Amino acid sequence: MVATGSKCRTCKAPAIIDLPRHNAKFCAEHFQELCRRQVAKAIDHWKMFQPGDKILVAVSGGKDSLAVWDLLHELGYDADGLYIGLGIGDYSEESGRYARNFADERGLRLIEVSLRSEYGYDIPTAARATRRVPCSSCGLSKRHLFDKAALDGGYDVVVTGHNLDDEAAVLFGNALRWEIDYLARQLPVLAARDGLPRKVKPLVRLSERETAAWCIVRGIDYLVEECPMAEGNKHLGYKAALNAIENESPGTKASFYLNFIERMAPVLADARQASEDTVGACSQCGAPTSGEVCAFCRLVDTASAHAPVPVELVSMRRGRR
Amino acid sequence: MVATGSKCRTCKAPAIIDLPRHNAKFCAEHFQELCRRQVAKAIDHWKMFQPGDKILVAVSGGKDSLAVWDLLHELGYDADGLYIGLGIGDYSEESGRYARNFADERGLRLIEVSLRSEYGYDIPTAARATRRVPCSSCGLSKRHLFDKAALDGGYDVVVTGHNLDDEAAVLFGNALRWEIDYLARQLPVLAARDGLPRKVKPLVRLSERETAAWCIVRGIDYLVEECPMAEGNKHLGYKAALNAIENESPGTKASFYLNFIERMAPVLADARQASEDTVGACSQCGAPTSGEVCAFCRLVDTASAHAPVPVELVSMRRGRR
Repeated sequence: MVATGSKCRTCKAPAIIDLPRHNAKFCAEHFQELCRRQVAKAIDHWKMFQPGDKILVAVSGGKDSLAVWDLLHELGYDADGLYIGLGIGDYSEESGRYARNFADERGLRLIEVSLRSEYGYDIPTAARATRRVPCSSCGLSKRHLFDKAALDGGYDVVVTGHNLDDEAAVLFGNALRWEIDYLARQLPVLAARDGLPRKVKPLVRLSERETAAWCIVRGIDYLVEECPMAEGNKHLGYKAALNAIENESPGTKASFYLNFIERMAPVLADARQASEDTVGACSQCGAPTSGEVCAFCRLVDTASAHAPVPVELVSMRRGRR
Repeated sequence: MVATGSKCRTCKAPAIIDLPRHNAKFCAEHFQELCRRQVAKAIDHWKMFQPGDKILVAVSGGKDSLAVWDLLHELGYDADGLYIGLGIGDYSEESGRYARNFADERGLRLIEVSLRSEYGYDIPTAARATRRVPCSSCGLSKRHLFDKAALDGGYDVVVTGHNLDDEAAVLFGNALRWEIDYLARQLPVLAARDGLPRKVKPLVRLSERETAAWCIVRGIDYLVEECPMAEGNKHLGYKAALNAIENESPGTKASFYLNFIERMAPVLADARQASEDTVGACSQCGAPTSGEVCAFCRLVDTASAHAPVPVELVSMRRGRR
């Protein structure tokens, strides 16, 4: 990660990581300090939450969600975790073990929800039943169940582990298509509304490489593999394109995301308002929706009626045969 | 350019070019028809000009400017050309020859302006004198002199050869930095204002590969080399990043640009208005400016006072030593 003989910017001890974006190298201790400072800055600047708020962290067992859970405790916030069993074969089995181990070792509370046992479907089956890319039903299911768990448990805010690379890639995809509604809502904090909890992303000032390094220096075991169903999705192509530019001009990715929030998001305020208007309640579950029945209840109806499909039989690019 | 045995979508004759974005292959005749149709569509849809308008084409001697001049005549428009001698060593010498040959062979009128003999500087010297990247003083000089030539000659509109790849790359750069003012003004037509002529880009629906193929099938000789001073500029990195995505998903580049114009440009109308307000006249040349003296006159003052610098001595990345 760093050339031999490099020294920490802060203490001149041997450096363990080079961060070209910050034009600096750091030892393990001062790298952690930088991470804590970046996360505290995001929480304070965007008013994500304050001590005493009841916080629920969406935990997948990957580096980002375990890093954010760890960092919140480091910064003195109490937070419980929520793990959703998505039923993606061995990948889900393993990710659940990492999440449970992390919580057990630290005496933290982990709430678990299983799509298959509680809602009668899993993601491979949903992908096949809906004939859409798996990421579509997966995202829809997670958003709905994060909201529901937060409301059921009386949490003020849902925390997700989205990092700078995630947000920059999503922003790039939305800008490539100029999806005004999606752009308007791509913020590090989405305010509570219509009975939904606030949603916040405290890691948006840390890159993917930095959250991985955080886990390594902190001794956190996490599931390294990417989700097998995400293979070939466009998101990964957008990350690669941004990484190529970042390598030429370190800091481009951060300024792309942060300048969007600062300069462009205010211009989109009217579009954001319009996208939040005219929402009713789902006749089946009561969640906010612009239709009669919300998209999650429609997914449950479709996917739970389908015979279970093992992940190995689902094509990666689409849910179709 | 195309696999052996491929056939033209229109007439089934052997194809000479494959256009994945249009999901089709074409023979030379029907490829030209497609180009004429795309350019006519751009001119009509964005109301660029109409028969009878006095048109001035900015001609560099490269493929795009010669293609657009040729296409306008094909479509029945009269247009004169304007060539600016930038003084970039052999590159400028050669580009001038291509522009003059094109005009002579077709009996077209080419107006010529020389930076060195009329304004006392050239681009390599301007880059050194201003200590900025050469593209900066080059763009400023060209914009000013296009406007001036159009006003002096009584032209209604200035045509430039910007193609889809150019516009998409500039758009990407402006979006990476969220330069709201630049984004607001990135349109295929800039209306006349403050005594400036209308400016239009009829090739925005054709890719770089398509304008090159147009020149080849039409037998137009053009300067193939890129400007030696543009080497290493960020624009080329943005083109490469977009090309990587286009290869995976043909049509992405066109939808990126065209959706911007359709969906995002209206959202930026207020910012556009603000950027056009409060403009006065340059005390030296009378051109619109927000300061006392316009940027072009300031450049002329700085660059013409500097001893001439040959292009070979100017670093490509900056004008500094």
